[in-house]
Amino acid sequence: MIGKLNHVAIATTDLEKAALVYRQTLGAKVSAPVDQPEHGVTTIFVELPGSKVELLSPLGANSPLANFLARNPGGGVHHLCFEVQDIHAARDRLLGEGARVLGEVKTGAHGKPVLFLHPKDFGGVLIELEQA
Amino acid sequence: MIGKLNHVAIATTDLEKAALVYRQTLGAKVSAPVDQPEHGVTTIFVELPGSKVELLSPLGANSPLANFLARNPGGGVHHLCFEVQDIHAARDRLLGEGARVLGEVKTGAHGKPVLFLHPKDFGGVLIELEQA
Repeated sequence: MIGKLNHVAIATTDLEKAALVYRQTLGAKVSAPVDQPEHGVTTIFVELPGSKVELLSPLGANSPLANFLARNPGGGVHHLCFEVQDIHAARDRLLGEGARVLGEVKTGAHGKPVLFLHPKDFGGVLIELEQA
Repeated sequence: MIGKLNHVAIATTDLEKAALVYRQTLGAKVSAPVDQPEHGVTTIFVELPGSKVELLSPLGANSPLANFLARNPGGGVHHLCFEVQDIHAARDRLLGEGARVLGEVKTGAHGKPVLFLHPKDFGGVLIELEQA
């Protein structure tokens, strides 16, 4: 069911510093920051061949990153995003397997349908599925 | 400098359960487990187009996963591995930028030269560089 790893999302309180590390220290191509107020994050993409790293920092009072960064003040890997062909078929399969999904299928930060899965059912890792 | 994301490594205390989640619940192609006594881990690969997820569990008394799993008993993302063309040139660049590397260039679990970077200099994320 899952296809390619679309991105690894890394949460940070200091987006500028994180971008500098990837651009300067690791020599990667790094995009400009984009505020996504409807998702409560500011994003920077680190473009790699075939996938990307997404650097995320909180935006606004109700950011979905707030709890994670309270537990991990130094930042860390926030989620992994795998592509699926059909997000609703994926959801139905997961529910049929007894896995917990978080909320409903929504439009994600890339304008595509996404669904988040419960970390407790996936080895402590928050997983996002994105319809490719 | 960094090229493609070679793999995302996920540490777990229950490798069989993790493999079942990726094979059965997420419908991915999952390899058989391989003990790597010289690295203190047992590995299972989840094969994805262009990258992989590496499921790791501790092997032996001095596993490098022991501290991580003590802090994260439910498991989680242990490291990200990016490819580089020349591991020694990469090390020299990193040291020149003032970043801390962990130990020396070694032969990694895939039989290629690898180097680990200090999470405190990389946004809380343990990074492995592998010479492609």
